[in-house]
Amino acid sequence: MTKNEKGEAFVIQALTAGHPLPAWVKTGPGDDAAILEDGQVLTTDMMVQGVHFDESISPEALAWKLLAINTSDVAACGAHATWAMLSIALPEPLDQAWTERFSKAFKRRLLALNIALVGGDTTRSSGPLILNLCVAGKLEGPALLRSGASPNEDIWVSGVLGDASGGFHLNAPILRERFEQPHPPLALGPALATAQLATAAMDLSDGLLQDLERLCTASNCGGDIDPTKLPASDELLKATESPLRHQVAFGEDYQLLFTGKKAHRDAITSLGEQLGLRLTRIGKTTKLLGLRIPGCDTMQVWTHFQERTK
Amino acid sequence: MTKNEKGEAFVIQALTAGHPLPAWVKTGPGDDAAILEDGQVLTTDMMVQGVHFDESISPEALAWKLLAINTSDVAACGAHATWAMLSIALPEPLDQAWTERFSKAFKRRLLALNIALVGGDTTRSSGPLILNLCVAGKLEGPALLRSGASPNEDIWVSGVLGDASGGFHLNAPILRERFEQPHPPLALGPALATAQLATAAMDLSDGLLQDLERLCTASNCGGDIDPTKLPASDELLKATESPLRHQVAFGEDYQLLFTGKKAHRDAITSLGEQLGLRLTRIGKTTKLLGLRIPGCDTMQVWTHFQERTK
Repeated sequence: MTKNEKGEAFVIQALTAGHPLPAWVKTGPGDDAAILEDGQVLTTDMMVQGVHFDESISPEALAWKLLAINTSDVAACGAHATWAMLSIALPEPLDQAWTERFSKAFKRRLLALNIALVGGDTTRSSGPLILNLCVAGKLEGPALLRSGASPNEDIWVSGVLGDASGGFHLNAPILRERFEQPHPPLALGPALATAQLATAAMDLSDGLLQDLERLCTASNCGGDIDPTKLPASDELLKATESPLRHQVAFGEDYQLLFTGKKAHRDAITSLGEQLGLRLTRIGKTTKLLGLRIPGCDTMQVWTHFQERTK
Repeated sequence: MTKNEKGEAFVIQALTAGHPLPAWVKTGPGDDAAILEDGQVLTTDMMVQGVHFDESISPEALAWKLLAINTSDVAACGAHATWAMLSIALPEPLDQAWTERFSKAFKRRLLALNIALVGGDTTRSSGPLILNLCVAGKLEGPALLRSGASPNEDIWVSGVLGDASGGFHLNAPILRERFEQPHPPLALGPALATAQLATAAMDLSDGLLQDLERLCTASNCGGDIDPTKLPASDELLKATESPLRHQVAFGEDYQLLFTGKKAHRDAITSLGEQLGLRLTRIGKTTKLLGLRIPGCDTMQVWTHFQERTK
């Protein structure tokens, strides 16, 4: 764990230890989102200027990303997002042009995602620009959890890995755009859940190394990854001769990581074709705990955005 | 409107104009909380160090206040709070002792309020300490809105007014405690809603002048207040010879402002006795728009915490 992760884990532990949850909370803190008995899926993310983004980001990209990271969590649990609440603290003096551009882009994206902005809070900030979004979704089938995998299942990912990392670290405008405006495969989680084709799932926000470890830990199994199978975009391969560290660390791709039974390989492949999504088998779960990804020196790549921009 | 309120109104307008809400959103931005078709009541509040509180506040008082202001909004709509999500951005280096004290107080208060912390987000801050809480509640009867009052009804308030202002402005430790740890009458809103005794309601977060104007505007009526009827605590009366400005401006008392039909006076009074709450008739609604509160020079008292600590 990085220093920040240790800090985060400490705070989460302090806030949740000894706070028993009622039976109507099916999944509490620890998965991508909370899941209630009535099928409601809930998530929240805070973005702070100077930590999660810097001044170079456009208001349009920020609006996009705020919605992407939250809807990705909801979709990774198998739900479609329905409503959102936005809190925003703006530095003074109020930048009206910025606010108008952000609002316009945010509303446009809400409309495209069919999400209702039901409430929020606006205030001024004594320092950085701060955004917090809560997004709720509704399950139509069973929930997808991190904890459902068993040994000897296939490990899959959607899309390509490493574009966000490439966009942040390399000089490649098209990758930069993918870093700033990620496209989580929002239809995939609900479709996998409804068809009962995935045993476990989570979105790739912190990179395959960290996120697969979380999924495996929650499922009490290990993971064996074939690095030559990891999907990469042509643009990433053009921009670097060493794509692997981008594909496994850093994160921010918001692709879906999931596991499925071998018997469901064809069904999963054809679901991907139906949805127009690239789905790739990258390895398998194992009885032996821990991750095996040949070629990954975890100590070297074990960083992510929050550390790097410190 | 103060400069901040104009800024807030601009941002809210930018974020909501032209964003149509689906029919299942019964009340969107503009009331104390959002109300959905399924009876869910939703609110969120962000608190930023240097804007909403300063370093002198204890972690215990901050935890209390964050829950008080959000549960007050939910209760003002007639609902009991059920779940919450907390986002927290902590300055570095992480103050473990502070975090433990905050978490302990927060969990203790969640337990007392019977609220489940279902999720959240923890991150570091590049500047101030930042907290955001979302709280949801469930209606058991009809919702209480700001917009339900008609002319010639009674205007009521719960508790006493001005203690929070006194606590902030005057040298009186007992009032300071009430400012830092407000006690919204959380049982009152749901009880009034279930018994259908209130025509409109909202919580007093910004002071009677501002909040009554909002209620009257939403209800398309005016308000006539008898300043001699405004309830004050003995402690406020001891601390100042001019309690009126504390009672009508500043806010932060989180008492309930509501309207009721004259025929329900006795029933409201006896409900207050049952709940152990002081309820006071302070005036009436009028057909003539605008507020009349003799003795209030609104230009002088029209300030609140966010302006004062600037």
